[in-house]
Amino acid sequence: MRKILEEQIENLHQDFAKMGFDVAKSIENATNVFENHDEALAKKVLENDSAINESEIYLERKTAQVIALQQPVASDLRVLITILKASSDLERMGDHAVSIVHSTKRIDVNNRNQEIEDILVKMSKHVHKMLLDVIDAYVHNDEEKARSLAADDEVNDDYLRQVRRKALDAMQSDPKFVSAGPEYMVIATHFERMGDYVTNVSEWIVYTNTGRIVELGPTDSKRE
Amino acid sequence: MRKILEEQIENLHQDFAKMGFDVAKSIENATNVFENHDEALAKKVLENDSAINESEIYLERKTAQVIALQQPVASDLRVLITILKASSDLERMGDHAVSIVHSTKRIDVNNRNQEIEDILVKMSKHVHKMLLDVIDAYVHNDEEKARSLAADDEVNDDYLRQVRRKALDAMQSDPKFVSAGPEYMVIATHFERMGDYVTNVSEWIVYTNTGRIVELGPTDSKRE
Repeated sequence: MRKILEEQIENLHQDFAKMGFDVAKSIENATNVFENHDEALAKKVLENDSAINESEIYLERKTAQVIALQQPVASDLRVLITILKASSDLERMGDHAVSIVHSTKRIDVNNRNQEIEDILVKMSKHVHKMLLDVIDAYVHNDEEKARSLAADDEVNDDYLRQVRRKALDAMQSDPKFVSAGPEYMVIATHFERMGDYVTNVSEWIVYTNTGRIVELGPTDSKRE
Repeated sequence: MRKILEEQIENLHQDFAKMGFDVAKSIENATNVFENHDEALAKKVLENDSAINESEIYLERKTAQVIALQQPVASDLRVLITILKASSDLERMGDHAVSIVHSTKRIDVNNRNQEIEDILVKMSKHVHKMLLDVIDAYVHNDEEKARSLAADDEVNDDYLRQVRRKALDAMQSDPKFVSAGPEYMVIATHFERMGDYVTNVSEWIVYTNTGRIVELGPTDSKRE
């Protein structure tokens, strides 16, 4: 019984990490779509998202099954609850990558603003790295690393504010940017939310380790 | 043992429904803030959000505890998993209400667009009703009602498109709207996401009833 449970948990670990890498790929691809307005790649992000959704459903189904049949306790149960909960956080990040692709389509390609796009690409790379780090913290069950990621998320608020200000300035000084400007703001908001989801995953890593449900990020009331 | 479990589940049911009503209140208040730029009420939304976050943590902690100590099976376990998962959906809706309050603060009050604001208020009322309906479906364990809510969510896509088009038109025809325009789009996106979360809760109600994890809404790749 015990051996079966261990094996099942090990498989779920791997599946969860794989889902995380799929989402990271989605973010990378969505960013390339944003930079290059590449329609073939845009299609790929949407296809990849279906796979991500299926992974979430698989993980939910499987963890529920293992909890029901094996009746795990203590740290085994905590691991399963973490996978059950944090799979939604990964899936949501994938949704935001899809939204970035849709947002990109609405940008007037003849009137792009390079300065703002550069900030958004930087922001994307930051979020992408945060996701890889949190998967790494998950795989190595590294509570300290998970906790440290919450601080990384603060940078995203700065990026968001920068994008917002520069997009407003651009629209005010030249009406040709009224197509791209709002989309830049929306895309920055998507990246910012992705950072929040990384923090959520971090919180579940802490839970796996300690059994305590904590809030690592700024409280939502301070969120923008 | 059985009686204790029943009581605990009944308490969790009530706490979950109460959290849902708190979120509904938050949406209502955020909409009033948006309509009237009422700063005192804005503060209340932020305070209420802290209470919502605490409710989520409480529900997560409590369901995990009941699963660990009572080792429920079959429909009892499904109810607990539903509460564990769907509490995040409610909490996220609360986050979006907070974001609407922050977005409202960035709108230039001297250059508002009544036509677009009217659409957003209608959209808000629609989402608010969807949330009340899904809480009702949850309380009465009404699978059919839960399933029917996915169709209601489609209306939100229309509202979002309307707001986006009209905001662009307004900004293009009069630069004074470049402050409000992007925020209107962002706020419409927040309401649209709230609708998605209602669909998520609906999916968990179906799971409680059938043990099957389904996707009721449009697939995310079709999402905007």
